[in-house]
Amino acid sequence: MIMITITKISNNELKKILRLFLETAPDIYMPGLSVDTVIFGFHNDKLKVLLSSVGDPPSFGLPGGFVRKDEDLDDAALRILQERTGFENIYLEQFYTSGKKDRSNEKMMKELIEKVIGKTSEINWFRQRFVSVCYYALIDDTKVKPSAEIIFGEFKWFDINRVPKLIFDHNFILKKALATLRYDLNEKLVGFNLMSETFTMNELQKLYEAVYQEKFIRTNFQRKMLSLGVLERLEKHYNGKAHKAPYLYRFVNAK
Amino acid sequence: MIMITITKISNNELKKILRLFLETAPDIYMPGLSVDTVIFGFHNDKLKVLLSSVGDPPSFGLPGGFVRKDEDLDDAALRILQERTGFENIYLEQFYTSGKKDRSNEKMMKELIEKVIGKTSEINWFRQRFVSVCYYALIDDTKVKPSAEIIFGEFKWFDINRVPKLIFDHNFILKKALATLRYDLNEKLVGFNLMSETFTMNELQKLYEAVYQEKFIRTNFQRKMLSLGVLERLEKHYNGKAHKAPYLYRFVNAK
Repeated sequence: MIMITITKISNNELKKILRLFLETAPDIYMPGLSVDTVIFGFHNDKLKVLLSSVGDPPSFGLPGGFVRKDEDLDDAALRILQERTGFENIYLEQFYTSGKKDRSNEKMMKELIEKVIGKTSEINWFRQRFVSVCYYALIDDTKVKPSAEIIFGEFKWFDINRVPKLIFDHNFILKKALATLRYDLNEKLVGFNLMSETFTMNELQKLYEAVYQEKFIRTNFQRKMLSLGVLERLEKHYNGKAHKAPYLYRFVNAK
Repeated sequence: MIMITITKISNNELKKILRLFLETAPDIYMPGLSVDTVIFGFHNDKLKVLLSSVGDPPSFGLPGGFVRKDEDLDDAALRILQERTGFENIYLEQFYTSGKKDRSNEKMMKELIEKVIGKTSEINWFRQRFVSVCYYALIDDTKVKPSAEIIFGEFKWFDINRVPKLIFDHNFILKKALATLRYDLNEKLVGFNLMSETFTMNELQKLYEAVYQEKFIRTNFQRKMLSLGVLERLEKHYNGKAHKAPYLYRFVNAK
């Protein structure tokens, strides 16, 4: 993990950075196309989502960016996540492209930028309509630490039930991402790489309960999980308290 | 269903239409953004896909088009399908956005256009890189009839096992669409509206076998379908041959 720490920079420096961005953006990036990422975090039975804040009072949004003209879309998503948060080797899954004509507009963009650098009329790049290709990931949020970032200053994990109003249509995108995560969880379970090498059925149930935000009945849950055919039950490890120890499982293709 | 029949037009007329399109496109459409549709057809136990052909010898591709600047993305997909094929009231599902940097390029575009109108240097609009948002649908292909279309002249249903080499990355998009259809079939089964009001388990099995291109064992298939909780078994309709008649089912929420 690379962590870049950037000390607070002045408003003038911010303006310079933004001006440079606006001048060069049309040559560098695909017009009208953005990428947004929904990074879910799971740890200690809780599901969270990573948001960044702009300005004071803060506006919150999903980490996002633009696609270089000479770059594959999927590569852009990984680069943006890396540049914005410092995260590397995250498995991002494309899940939706958001394209309502009024999902972002000049006024929203202007307000957001003026929150950071104050009054400005130089926002040409942001005058256009953006269609946003969205990616999601589910990670153990204790294993990564978002680094500071120049414009969207601070990153914070939010409990999935305590997400504030977000910029543009980011609440809608987050809702879509959560629905996709739930829809995909059985299939992507092994790939998400969230469980330790061996785990109990109860630990697995906690993950499902956090993602679905609902309680499951233990016996039903166990039956359903075993029917997926991805779990292997290990021999109980006999020690003094063996008769109380729960069975351990591991993923079949993780041998 | 609206069916527009267009009689063969001359090369000169085609050139005029294309020139007009190229002149106005930058004002009308979002830059660098296209939509492609994968329309699967099911009937008589066969899965097919709708392709259009250009030129002679023909190049085959998926029906597609561009997104108007003042139009929601999902609306664009419906409009494009309607304009290209005459299909209306088709439930389109967005499933993927294809964005490799080399998925289309000027040379490919030029070749394709010159197939239709002959040598030309006027292809500015097509010089840019396009990211394509892709939608799919599964319909009963006897209930619709694609109408003729000006540039991409003829539409034809192809058996899913006999798809030729397609333009750009359309074979890849089709493969993604088929994988999505298989992944989604259980969940979307009712919505696809493919079965008659009542149907036998055998009829349902034929649909699954066509989509998955594999044979299933009757008893396993029946058990799996019943476990989905979307089927209701109806009373047998007693007539002379009642003891031989198979059970009829209907979808639970279709009451």
